Amino acid sequence: MIKIAVDCFGGDRSPQANIDGSLSALEKNKDLYLILTGDEEIISSHLKDRTYDHERLQIVHAPTVITPDEKPTDAIRLKRDSSMMAAVNLLRTDDSVGGMVSTGSTGALVTAAVLRIGRLRNVIRPAFCPILPTMTGGIVGVCDSGANVDITPEYLQQYAVFGTIYLQTVYNIEKPRVAMLNIGTEAGKGDELRKKAYTLLENTPEVNFVGNMESRDLLAGNYDLVVCDGFSGNVLVKTTEGTAIELLKKLKKGIFSKTIYKLGAGLMKGLFDDFKETMNYQNYGGSVLLGTSKTVVKGHGSSNAVAVEKCIEQAFGMEKNAFAEKTEAILDRISNQEQ
Amino acid sequence: MIKIAVDCFGGDRSPQANIDGSLSALEKNKDLYLILTGDEEIISSHLKDRTYDHERLQIVHAPTVITPDEKPTDAIRLKRDSSMMAAVNLLRTDDSVGGMVSTGSTGALVTAAVLRIGRLRNVIRPAFCPILPTMTGGIVGVCDSGANVDITPEYLQQYAVFGTIYLQTVYNIEKPRVAMLNIGTEAGKGDELRKKAYTLLENTPEVNFVGNMESRDLLAGNYDLVVCDGFSGNVLVKTTEGTAIELLKKLKKGIFSKTIYKLGAGLMKGLFDDFKETMNYQNYGGSVLLGTSKTVVKGHGSSNAVAVEKCIEQAFGMEKNAFAEKTEAILDRISNQEQ
Repeated sequence: MIKIAVDCFGGDRSPQANIDGSLSALEKNKDLYLILTGDEEIISSHLKDRTYDHERLQIVHAPTVITPDEKPTDAIRLKRDSSMMAAVNLLRTDDSVGGMVSTGSTGALVTAAVLRIGRLRNVIRPAFCPILPTMTGGIVGVCDSGANVDITPEYLQQYAVFGTIYLQTVYNIEKPRVAMLNIGTEAGKGDELRKKAYTLLENTPEVNFVGNMESRDLLAGNYDLVVCDGFSGNVLVKTTEGTAIELLKKLKKGIFSKTIYKLGAGLMKGLFDDFKETMNYQNYGGSVLLGTSKTVVKGHGSSNAVAVEKCIEQAFGMEKNAFAEKTEAILDRISNQEQ
Repeated sequence: MIKIAVDCFGGDRSPQANIDGSLSALEKNKDLYLILTGDEEIISSHLKDRTYDHERLQIVHAPTVITPDEKPTDAIRLKRDSSMMAAVNLLRTDDSVGGMVSTGSTGALVTAAVLRIGRLRNVIRPAFCPILPTMTGGIVGVCDSGANVDITPEYLQQYAVFGTIYLQTVYNIEKPRVAMLNIGTEAGKGDELRKKAYTLLENTPEVNFVGNMESRDLLAGNYDLVVCDGFSGNVLVKTTEGTAIELLKKLKKGIFSKTIYKLGAGLMKGLFDDFKETMNYQNYGGSVLLGTSKTVVKGHGSSNAVAVEKCIEQAFGMEKNAFAEKTEAILDRISNQEQ
């Protein structure tokens, strides 16, 4: 049985989406056990009249909620009775709980994860790894998308290691193609950081390093994982989302500007629906914070039930396929080699 | 009369596109004088039977061409008789020549510009400023898009200054809204570099600084200029282009997958054409290297005649509206204040 804690509050559609997603994940995975954290009365009222396996669901009462505008360090200190901190506390104190999912404040979650949950052996700093859809029907992970702005080459090597294990354990990609984000594809490109990281990555046999990637190729389907510093990773992920959103918005506006376009768009409805479905970030779950000693999945604030369910499955997959053990084994090997 | 040198070789469509663009710019701007550099025989053969004002066009013979795979420092030293270096040499030695346009090797051009042409007074390092179309029908400049990877806060302040003057002199934007690329919009966001730059920008009265911008908002039309380090600027610009290209490719493939989609797309032809026209980077000219003592415009390697014409008009506008003098005046003021 794999136990995952689900913070049921703090998202735009909480607690409904979090509870619906939880029940759906429970239904599909028979060796999953969920602990929902948050106001017990509210959660219970949402569970009333629902069909689910009561043996595999538990509620831990936590009456308050951390809001996005609270200062993370204050929030985690002052709101120990919040739904998020209740889940964090379960990871800290209960060995049988393997991971957690939250759609609440990113800042508070990262701070709590780093300060209260801790890191896997030899990990310098945990990093976010969101998953984006490629235009060839696949996915691509970006690590780090914003947890660490100031980094060293060793960070990028570690991102490549835990990103690889993540794609293997959760997405069944046997030998993920790992690229480093750079301003050109040739080996000598970029600043000193990138040059040193390139050599490190080339010399990490557990990583299938395929070289530098220019940002224009992110969605082309040639890579499974891109490693980068948190600043440029944030730019990479948000520019991709922003460009897609703005383009589709402009297209939609154009369609409504003329009757003949509306007619044309009507005929193309199936295609546009496929398109929207591919681009729908809800289908790709959350951004996992890789490198913490227990799995922490950050769902988008606007996560719906589908997204929450995917987040739970991400945590479940990592636990089930021994993400932590596999990652530590490789980092041990690297650490021993260095000494 | 404003004199601009045009390197006629080194681009994918050279010399045809460079010569066609030159003649078109000459036709439209009566106080423009062009000096075409490159193999005289080839250029002359392209000019034969063409109608243009012979009084305002001159050829400077330069028999060789720098290719993109040559090492920049070697290329500018060994190929002094190349079309690019002939143009650079005109800027160096002829006071009456105000700027140049090239669609050749970016590396060689930047190296030659920095080493041979030099900087405007008080400029730390010149930076690229490409222009992108926004989804609201306007434009947005990004400075720097890749010239300088390692920077200080003062670089960003300077980018804001010469980027502002550029948008004023070439695009008639009276008071460009300047934002700094960051991982959040609040004032305290980002690393130490960004925090210090934020304060500098707030205290530069010649710059209409409106705060931090998240990369997802680049195309929304709320900013005229974004300042950033060359690494993340490169990611910003190339991710935008790459996402747009991949999305449109996928859409096109989808359209051809079913007859009914083809039919619908037929009805929407006008809209798709508008869309393609807005997104067509050829319409936005080149990436100007701002901060050099004379104007250097880098056209994309794939520039067609329209793009080359726009590049010439960018150089022309900067010269005509005294970009250099206005920029130096502000940088003098800042430099005096610091002392």
